[in-house]
Amino acid sequence: MPMSYDLSRDDCSRLLRAGVAGRVALGTPDGPHIIPVNYAVDAGERGDGPESVLVRTTAYSLLGTYGRDAQVCFEVDQFDHELKRGWSVVVRGRASFVDDHEALARIARSWQPRPWAEGQRHLLVRIPWTEVTGRQLGGGWDPWEFLPVRRLA
Amino acid sequence: MPMSYDLSRDDCSRLLRAGVAGRVALGTPDGPHIIPVNYAVDAGERGDGPESVLVRTTAYSLLGTYGRDAQVCFEVDQFDHELKRGWSVVVRGRASFVDDHEALARIARSWQPRPWAEGQRHLLVRIPWTEVTGRQLGGGWDPWEFLPVRRLA
Repeated sequence: MPMSYDLSRDDCSRLLRAGVAGRVALGTPDGPHIIPVNYAVDAGERGDGPESVLVRTTAYSLLGTYGRDAQVCFEVDQFDHELKRGWSVVVRGRASFVDDHEALARIARSWQPRPWAEGQRHLLVRIPWTEVTGRQLGGGWDPWEFLPVRRLA
Repeated sequence: MPMSYDLSRDDCSRLLRAGVAGRVALGTPDGPHIIPVNYAVDAGERGDGPESVLVRTTAYSLLGTYGRDAQVCFEVDQFDHELKRGWSVVVRGRASFVDDHEALARIARSWQPRPWAEGQRHLLVRIPWTEVTGRQLGGGWDPWEFLPVRRLA
C-alpha cells in the first residue's frame, strides 16, 4: 500500500495553477453539495498574490444562492488506479462575488474561467486561498510530470 | 460550447458501479470539506438494492468525527479538456457507520473498499443513494466507453 505525503504550499500552488477543472463543496440548508467547475487562478493585479480560485456561475445556481460570504471548499485531484498513486489539493476560504469593476476588467483581460456547459454565467465567485493543503499518494514521482492538461503560462 | 444533459438514473448507477475513486463533501463546524476516497458500491444481500456507496476511514478522521448520521455528498466525474466533454454523478444521503456484524461480514466477502493510502481504516461509512443525479457535457458519446478504469463485475 503506497505511503501518503503532505504536499508543500509551492507544490499545491503549481498544481492549482496548472488545472482547469475542479469541484466546489458548499453547505446548503439541506446539507453539503459538490459542484464540478471550470476554474482559473487569480493572483491579483501584479500576479504576486494574494491568490484565489475564480469560478463562473449564475445567480440562480446553488453557488449563486448560497455561496456569497460562505465558507467553501475547492478541490482538484488526479488518481491513477493502475499505478496506485495520485494527488489532491484542497483550498478552503470564504467565497465572495466579484463585483468590483476594475477587478472584473482585469480578470477579463487576463483570463476568464470559461465554462464548457452552455448558458450565460455572469456571476464570478472568488475563493481565497486562506487554507491550502495537498496530499500525494506514493513516492518517487512528481505529479507535475503527469498532468493530463497543463494550462499555458 | 457543448450542451449539457441530465444522465438517467441507470446511467448514473452504471458509472457509480464502475468507479473506484471519488470525493465526499462533509459539513463541519468550520465549513464544508472535500475528502478524496476510494469507494465501493453495495447493493444489499441479494445485490438488488437499496444501493449505497461504501468508504473506509478512521475514527479520528473528519469523516469519522462528523460523518455519523450527517447528510453528505459523494461525487465522481471525468473531464476531457481537449474534447471539451465530461460527466459527473452526485449521490446525496445521510451517512451511517456500518456496525452490523452480518453486513460487515457480507461486505468483507464480496468487496471491501481498499484505500490506497497506508494506515488502518477500520470504520466503514455507508452513503445511501437517496438522491442520485448526473450530468453529461457534450452529446454523441457514451461516458461508459471512455472510462479510464472499469471495475470488473
